[in-house]
Amino acid sequence: MSKQIYIHEVVTRDGLQNEDQFLPTKDKIHLLNQLSQTGLDKIEVTSFVSPNAVPNLADAEQVMTSIQRNPQISYSALIPNVIGAKRAMKCHVDEVNLVVSASETHNQKNIRQSIQQTYDQFELIIDYLSDKPVIRNGSIGTAFGCPFEGKVSEFKVLLLIEAYKSLGIENITLADTTGMATPTQVYQLCKQVLTFFPDLQLTMHFHNTRGMGLANVIQAIQAGVTHFDSSLGGIGGCPFAPGATGNICTEDVVHMLYFMGYDLNAKLDSLIDSSIHLQSLLSHETPGQVSKAGKITDLHDPSKF
Amino acid sequence: MSKQIYIHEVVTRDGLQNEDQFLPTKDKIHLLNQLSQTGLDKIEVTSFVSPNAVPNLADAEQVMTSIQRNPQISYSALIPNVIGAKRAMKCHVDEVNLVVSASETHNQKNIRQSIQQTYDQFELIIDYLSDKPVIRNGSIGTAFGCPFEGKVSEFKVLLLIEAYKSLGIENITLADTTGMATPTQVYQLCKQVLTFFPDLQLTMHFHNTRGMGLANVIQAIQAGVTHFDSSLGGIGGCPFAPGATGNICTEDVVHMLYFMGYDLNAKLDSLIDSSIHLQSLLSHETPGQVSKAGKITDLHDPSKF
Repeated sequence: MSKQIYIHEVVTRDGLQNEDQFLPTKDKIHLLNQLSQTGLDKIEVTSFVSPNAVPNLADAEQVMTSIQRNPQISYSALIPNVIGAKRAMKCHVDEVNLVVSASETHNQKNIRQSIQQTYDQFELIIDYLSDKPVIRNGSIGTAFGCPFEGKVSEFKVLLLIEAYKSLGIENITLADTTGMATPTQVYQLCKQVLTFFPDLQLTMHFHNTRGMGLANVIQAIQAGVTHFDSSLGGIGGCPFAPGATGNICTEDVVHMLYFMGYDLNAKLDSLIDSSIHLQSLLSHETPGQVSKAGKITDLHDPSKF
Repeated sequence: MSKQIYIHEVVTRDGLQNEDQFLPTKDKIHLLNQLSQTGLDKIEVTSFVSPNAVPNLADAEQVMTSIQRNPQISYSALIPNVIGAKRAMKCHVDEVNLVVSASETHNQKNIRQSIQQTYDQFELIIDYLSDKPVIRNGSIGTAFGCPFEGKVSEFKVLLLIEAYKSLGIENITLADTTGMATPTQVYQLCKQVLTFFPDLQLTMHFHNTRGMGLANVIQAIQAGVTHFDSSLGGIGGCPFAPGATGNICTEDVVHMLYFMGYDLNAKLDSLIDSSIHLQSLLSHETPGQVSKAGKITDLHDPSKF
C-alpha cells in the first residue's frame, strides 16, 4: 500500500484555457510560483498554440519565462506543431506534450486535422526536437469515449500508442477528455496498455464530468498506473467537448490518496491553500470539495453545535 | 459482472431534512409518486421524529399515507422511539429504520442520548413491534468517522452490529454520515463485517462530502456489498454534521453502475427526469452531475460545434 503516486498539475493549461475570462498574466505567474512549492511532480504550465485558438493562453512565453522554477518539478507545455515546439524550446520547457484524439471527429473539431495529419505534424516536431534535451510526452484525447462518435475502441488506442512509440515517445497520457470513462473501462484499458507496453510511463488524465473521476483513479491504480493529471479546484474542460465540466480536482485526489496511505510528494495543506487562492481569482465557484469541507482530520468542537 | 445492485432512495428523508426551506407536502407526494415509477428497490419516505427536531418532515403522516405505493418497492421511515414507531405503523410503512451513531459525541449531538440510552429505546421499539409485520433495519451513523471524535474503531462498529443482532435485526446500514470514509477503509470494514456476519443484508450509505462517494461505492461492491442508499440530485446531509454537503447522487450512482454492466432495477432515464424535476422545486443547484452533463451515450452533433 505504500506505493508512490505522482501528481501532474494542469490547472494553468487545461484549467484556464476554458475559463470565460482571461486570468491576468501576473496572477498566473503568482499561482504557478505558489504551486511550485506544493510538491507536485509535474506542472503543465501553458500551451504554445495560436493565441487566436486559445486566447486565454496568449501569454504563454511570458508565463513560461517568468515563473520561478523548482528543480524538482518538470515544467511541461502543450505544443501542436513545429512553431509551438520552437516557442516552447525558446522558453526552455522541461517537457513538451503532443496531443491527438483517438476519435477522428474529435480530432477534426479540436485541431482541424485528421489523425494522420496530426501524426505527420508529430514527425516534423520530433525531427526538430532530435537534438534538444527535452522530455517528449504523447497524449491521446478521447481515449475512453468521444462526445461525437461514442465509444472508442481499445485497439485504436493501442495503435496510437504504437504510433507514438515509433516516434520514440515512451511517455503516454490517456485523456478522458469529456469524462466518459467508467471504472470498469479504466481498469480494462489500463491493464491492456500495461500488458502490451510494460515499459511505458503511463499517465491518466481524467475528468469528473459525470462524477466518476475519483473512482477511475482508484481503478487505474489497481491496474498499475501511478501518474495522474489533475487540476486545482477541479476547473477545466475542453472547449470543443460539449457538456464537459472539469478535470478531477488536484486537492481532492491528493486528499483521497493521502488518507488511503499512498506516498505522494504533493503536499495536501499547501494545495488546499493554493486552491483557496485560485478561488479568489475566479468569478465562479470551483467544483473541488475538500477546499470547502476540509480534510477528514479537520475535527470540530462539539460544544459549538 | 452481471451482479444485481439494489438502490435505496433517501431524498425525501435525508435529502430534504437539511434543506433551508420546507418543501410543500404536495410537492413531496408528487416527487415520491414519480420516484415510485423509477424501479428503485426501497424509498426512505420520511422520518417520524418530533416536528420540532426536524420541521422539514413535520408532514410525515400526510406524506406517508398519501403516496401511491408501488408493491415492488419497500417504503421505509426513520423512527427514533416508540412514539415514532407507533406513528409509522399507523401509516403502514413496510420498514422502519433505527439509527444510532458509532460515535458517542455524535450520538449525543444528533439525538441527545448516549449510545446505551439509544439501545434502551431500541429494546422498547422492538418489543412494541414484536407482533407487527414490518421489516426492521438498523443504521449505524458515523460508522467511518466522526466530525467531532475523528476515526471510529472498526471493532466498535462490529459491536454495534452485534447489539442490533441481539435485538433480532439482521438488516444493517453503515452510514458515512459526514463523508469521511476513504475507499481503502470502505473495503476493509465491509470485508470484516461480511466475514463476521455473512448473513446480514448490508447497505452502505455514503456521502460525497469530499468527492470520494462513488469510489467508495466501487470498493464496497468489490468487498461484496450490493445495497446502497443514495439521494436524488445528491442533496442532503446531516444537520448536526458540520461540513457535510450531500449524499451520493442517485442518478450518478445508477449511471456509473449501469454503464459498468451491473444489473439494476432502477431506471436511469426516469431518475434523470425526476432529478430535473427536483431541481425545479429547489432554490439552489443540486450537486448531481449526470443530470447536467447527460449520459455517456448522449452523443452530440459535430456539425453544431
